[in-house]
Amino acid sequence: MKIGVLGTGMVGRTLGTSLVQRGHDVRMGSRTRGHQGARAWVAGAGERASEGSFADASAFGDVVFNCTAGAASLRALELAGRDHLSGKILIDVANPLDFSQGMPPTLTVCNTDSLGEQIQRAFPEARVMKTLNTVNCNVMVNPGLVPGDHNLFLSGNDPDAKARVAHWLGEWFGWKRENILDLGDITTARGTEMLLPMWIRLMFALGTTGFNWRVVVGGA
Amino acid sequence: MKIGVLGTGMVGRTLGTSLVQRGHDVRMGSRTRGHQGARAWVAGAGERASEGSFADASAFGDVVFNCTAGAASLRALELAGRDHLSGKILIDVANPLDFSQGMPPTLTVCNTDSLGEQIQRAFPEARVMKTLNTVNCNVMVNPGLVPGDHNLFLSGNDPDAKARVAHWLGEWFGWKRENILDLGDITTARGTEMLLPMWIRLMFALGTTGFNWRVVVGGA
Repeated sequence: MKIGVLGTGMVGRTLGTSLVQRGHDVRMGSRTRGHQGARAWVAGAGERASEGSFADASAFGDVVFNCTAGAASLRALELAGRDHLSGKILIDVANPLDFSQGMPPTLTVCNTDSLGEQIQRAFPEARVMKTLNTVNCNVMVNPGLVPGDHNLFLSGNDPDAKARVAHWLGEWFGWKRENILDLGDITTARGTEMLLPMWIRLMFALGTTGFNWRVVVGGA
Repeated sequence: MKIGVLGTGMVGRTLGTSLVQRGHDVRMGSRTRGHQGARAWVAGAGERASEGSFADASAFGDVVFNCTAGAASLRALELAGRDHLSGKILIDVANPLDFSQGMPPTLTVCNTDSLGEQIQRAFPEARVMKTLNTVNCNVMVNPGLVPGDHNLFLSGNDPDAKARVAHWLGEWFGWKRENILDLGDITTARGTEMLLPMWIRLMFALGTTGFNWRVVVGGA
């Protein structure tokens, strides 16, 4: 499959490398062609890897990942191009974190809205699927780093797209289907984005980014 | 032990009943003495149960639980009385949920502040411990309703009070010490209060309130 990855940070590079290793053609997009980090990633990731502008990557991909910094995502997606996103599944991995006041970060949007919803509203013809944003990028592409069963969450409006993404999360990264919880429409992205303040505090308390949540169901 | 429980809702009644059953003397407080729900609770809970005003309950308790609705907690605690809370451990179970726009609720405070912090700032001589607010009240007092290991979180500024509360959570309700995660000071209450939007969406997705989180740690 041809996949566009928007963003050259650790999340984009990790996802991109994993997808190339599984035989996909991946184009990484950034604000300008020839971005130093993107070129370094291409050099290391092999011949299925390429790089270009945000628009180059979104035009290339049959599926597009948003791995840009949350506070810059809407602008990056504008540059990626409305037409290039139309009808495509846009997997939104970003979190709207604000580091401007230092650690721990706050959220730039939460409670009555979410970045996932903002993106879906701004790009109504894209099929926005919020997922993977609740784990560290190494866990995203290798859930076995955390022992046993633990969960990913999936939010989005399009049932067909959701089924495909749930399948891909297994095929690409090894997530068991039964560990992917469908939360509902894209408004449920408020729930997963608002996990981030907890995630960050757990990271401090546990001293590692290599953890995840397991939802345990009983019968109260 | 003598324990004050502020609030006559399901959380207050469930905690109060459980504490009475474990041999504690519990006084439930509400805005006015003789509150119908509090009287009904006393009638059902046995001779160690009593009721009164918020101030009656806070004066009575060596430890005080805040089980009032989050949006009303600061006012309820003012009525409970600054002097009655001074030096005491105040276990804050409330979440700042706003149901005024219907379901799902939003939060009245989040992101850059939390109810736990607001209470600690307003009552600096109380030892505010945020915990239990991330599970349904039936799970609070009976963690065995959810199978296996799953976590509670604890936020607060006073290490001695925190150690005592962690001990009591085991003694009173059966929470295993190793499943209680100390997140840090009271500002970490932002993390657990901001879990609520996720908790509510999981409740809808799972069709039950009888669930909890388990934090699974690996090595990414």
